[in-house]
Amino acid sequence: MNSVRPRVLIVGAGFGGLAAAEHLADLPVDVTVIDARNHHTFQPLLYQVATAGLDADDVCYPTRGVFHRQRNARVRLGRVVAIDRTARTVELDDGASLPFDYLVLAAGAITADFGVAGVTEHALGLKSAADALAIRTRVLQSFEAVDADRELIGTGALTTVIVGGGPTGVEMAGGMAELIDRVMRRDYPGLDVDRARIVLVEGADRVLGPFAPKLSAKAKKTLETMGVELQLGRNVAEVTATTVRLDDGSEIPAHTVVWAAGVRANPIGAALGVELDRSGRVIVDDDLRVPGHPEIFVLGDLAASPTDDGRPLPQVAPVAIQGGEHVATAIAASLDGRELEPFVYKDKGSMATIGRNAAVVELPNGRTLSGWPGWIAWLGLHLVMLIGFRNRANVLVNWAWNYWTYDRGSRLIVTDERPGM
Amino acid sequence: MNSVRPRVLIVGAGFGGLAAAEHLADLPVDVTVIDARNHHTFQPLLYQVATAGLDADDVCYPTRGVFHRQRNARVRLGRVVAIDRTARTVELDDGASLPFDYLVLAAGAITADFGVAGVTEHALGLKSAADALAIRTRVLQSFEAVDADRELIGTGALTTVIVGGGPTGVEMAGGMAELIDRVMRRDYPGLDVDRARIVLVEGADRVLGPFAPKLSAKAKKTLETMGVELQLGRNVAEVTATTVRLDDGSEIPAHTVVWAAGVRANPIGAALGVELDRSGRVIVDDDLRVPGHPEIFVLGDLAASPTDDGRPLPQVAPVAIQGGEHVATAIAASLDGRELEPFVYKDKGSMATIGRNAAVVELPNGRTLSGWPGWIAWLGLHLVMLIGFRNRANVLVNWAWNYWTYDRGSRLIVTDERPGM
Repeated sequence: MNSVRPRVLIVGAGFGGLAAAEHLADLPVDVTVIDARNHHTFQPLLYQVATAGLDADDVCYPTRGVFHRQRNARVRLGRVVAIDRTARTVELDDGASLPFDYLVLAAGAITADFGVAGVTEHALGLKSAADALAIRTRVLQSFEAVDADRELIGTGALTTVIVGGGPTGVEMAGGMAELIDRVMRRDYPGLDVDRARIVLVEGADRVLGPFAPKLSAKAKKTLETMGVELQLGRNVAEVTATTVRLDDGSEIPAHTVVWAAGVRANPIGAALGVELDRSGRVIVDDDLRVPGHPEIFVLGDLAASPTDDGRPLPQVAPVAIQGGEHVATAIAASLDGRELEPFVYKDKGSMATIGRNAAVVELPNGRTLSGWPGWIAWLGLHLVMLIGFRNRANVLVNWAWNYWTYDRGSRLIVTDERPGM
Repeated sequence: MNSVRPRVLIVGAGFGGLAAAEHLADLPVDVTVIDARNHHTFQPLLYQVATAGLDADDVCYPTRGVFHRQRNARVRLGRVVAIDRTARTVELDDGASLPFDYLVLAAGAITADFGVAGVTEHALGLKSAADALAIRTRVLQSFEAVDADRELIGTGALTTVIVGGGPTGVEMAGGMAELIDRVMRRDYPGLDVDRARIVLVEGADRVLGPFAPKLSAKAKKTLETMGVELQLGRNVAEVTATTVRLDDGSEIPAHTVVWAAGVRANPIGAALGVELDRSGRVIVDDDLRVPGHPEIFVLGDLAASPTDDGRPLPQVAPVAIQGGEHVATAIAASLDGRELEPFVYKDKGSMATIGRNAAVVELPNGRTLSGWPGWIAWLGLHLVMLIGFRNRANVLVNWAWNYWTYDRGSRLIVTDERPGM
C-alpha cells in the first residue's frame, strides 16, 4: 500500500478484533485484519451447531464481508508465526512480513487440556465451526453405528461426557439432551434411546460457578430433569477413545467426549516475548497496552488486564467487544497526542441457556432471571448480536422450526467420502 | 423386525428411492431405505453450494427425518457391497446381511472420468455436498492465496475450468461468474478480479445439447456476456494440478477444474450380476423389473429402461421420481397378484439456469421460455421441490438476500485445522 498513514495490524477476527477495526473506520489509518480463518465465528452459538440446531454457516460470517463498506480496512488470511517488537513487523506462515505502526492482538483463546492424558487425542473442543461439526458428526455416526449393531450401546457408544460445568458445558449438555430426546428418539424408532447417557463433569461443587448460587441450583435441577447426570466435585484423570476415567478411579464408557473444561490464551501471546500470566495471557497496563510498548495493544481473552480485585477480566465476548472499542479510541487519542484513558469494563451481566424455555440470566445489579423469561432474554440478545441480516434471518428460521416442531434440521454427516454407494 | 410382511429394501435415498418409499406408505410391507449417506441430496442445487450461494444444509435433508411419520419405513446407513439374487439378501460394508422380498435399486449415478488422465486426482466432481464444499473451498483458498501473492494469478490460480456443457456445467459457469463478479470483486478490493477466468469446455458444438438449438444459443450468449470463455467442440486430454490440456494440444493454466462432463451408473448395478448397458446401467423390462427377477426393480439414473426411440431415458430427477412412484404401484399390484403396467415417463420439460434473471426452459410441447420468465419458473419449481419447510424457508432467505444485495453469505472455508492463530 502506497500510504503514509499509520498502519494498524489487528490479529484476530473475533469479537474484539472486529470491534476494534470497525471503530477505526473514520480515522486516518490503514487497518489490516489478520486471521487464520476466513470468517468470524460466533462462538456463543457453536454448541447449537454441535447439537444440530443450527448450520455452521449460520454462526460464521465471512470476514471480508464485514469490511465491504469500510474503505480503510483490508483483510489478510494468515497465521502469525512471529512478532518483531523492535522492527515492528509481524511474520505470517506464508513468509510474508507485515509492518505496523500499531499492533492490536485479539487472537483469543484456545482449548486447554490442562495436561490431562488423552484429551488432545480423543476429546473434542468447541472453539471453531470445524470443532462443532466434528462433535455433530461423532454423535450422529455413533447413533448410526448402534442402529447397525445394538451391542455397541454397552460400550458407551451413546454416551456423551461433557467436561466442564461453565456456560459452554451446561449449554452443550442441555442441547445434547434435547437433540437426543426430541430428535434421535424419532430418528431411531427401533432404538431404546433412553439408554443414551449425557454426563456432565465439573471440578467445583456446582455448575455455572461465576453465577449466583441460586442460578447454579436452578441450572442443576433443569439439567437433571432433562436426564443429564451430573458429576460435581470430580475431575477427569484420563480420556481414551472409549472411556473417561475420573479422579476417584471410576470409569465412564463413552465414545464422545466434549472438552469444555477451560481455555488458555492463544500461543501468539508468547510470540510477543513479554510477561504472561499463568494461563498465557499477556499482562497489560490499565489502558490495554503492553508495558513499554505504547504501540502494542492486547485485548479480550488474550489479555490479563488489571482489575480492582486482582483477578483478570472474564474471558467473555463483552470484554473483548468493549476492549476493541477502547483500543480504537486509544489509537485515536494517540494520533492526536492526547493522554490515554484507562479501560473500564462495564459488566452487562451473564447468561447461559440450558434448553427450551430455560435459561439463567444474572444482571450486574444482582437481579436474576430464569426459566422462560430468561430464555426469551437470551434468545433476543443472541439474535441481535449475530452479525449480518442474513445470518439473523436464517437463525430465526431454524430456531422457529426447532421450537415448533422439536425437530433439528442440521444433522448431516458430511465427510470426505469417495463416490459409490 | 418380527414381521411376516414382505420386506422391501430400497437402495438409495435420492429422488427415486424416496419417491418409492413414500408411495409404499399405505401398503402392508416393511420398507428399509439404505444409503451410504445419512441425508438426501438435492443435487440440482449443488452448484449453488459450490458457488457459495447456499449452505450445504440447505440442499440436504436428513433421510431419517423424511420418515418420522411413516410407520412402515426405517432407514439404514450403509454401503451395499454385494447382492445375492438367489438368497435374496443384500450385504453391507459393516458385514450385515439384509433379506428382501422386493429389492429396489435406486442408487443413482456417480461422476465418470471417461479414462481421462488426471481427472480422479485433480478435478472436482459435483454429486455430493462434500463435492460442492470442496469446490467452494478450492476457489476461496485460491483467491486468498492470490491476495497474499499476486504472482500466482499467472499460474492459473484464479482460473476455473468447467468441463461439460450440460445443465450442470452451464449452471456452474454462470454461478461462478456471478460469485466472482458480484462478491469476490468486493471481497478483494485490491485485486484485479478481471484477471479471473472461467472456461467452459464442451465436446459438442453447442452447450445444453438436449435443449432446442435456440436455447443453446441464448445460453451461450448469456454466458459470454457474463465473461465465461467457451471452448466448444473440444475435449479434455489431461488434467494436472495446475493445467488442463485440450485435445488440440492447447493448455489452460487452472488451479480449479470442475468435472461436469458426465456420469456413469453406480457400481452397485454391476454387483447385481445381470446385463448392463455401455454406461453401466442395468437393463430392465418396460416395467422397470430386472428380466427373470420379478422381485427386483431398478429405476432412475441406474436403469437403462427401453424407450420407443431405443435410447434410455435421460438421467434427470423427474425420471427417478416417476420411476419410484411406478415401482410402488408395481409392488402393490404384485402383492395383489395383478398384472404390472409398463412404466411410461411423462416428460415435464427441462430447465437450466445461467444466472440472475436468466434461465432456459423447454416444455414437452416444444414451447420455450428464457430470460427473466424462465428464471422465475426455474426458481419456483426448485423451491417447491426442495424437501421440507425448513429447507425451503432458508433457501428463500438466502436467495432473497443474494438477489437484493448481490452478496453471498456461504463463503466459509471450514477445514479440519488445528487450533492456534
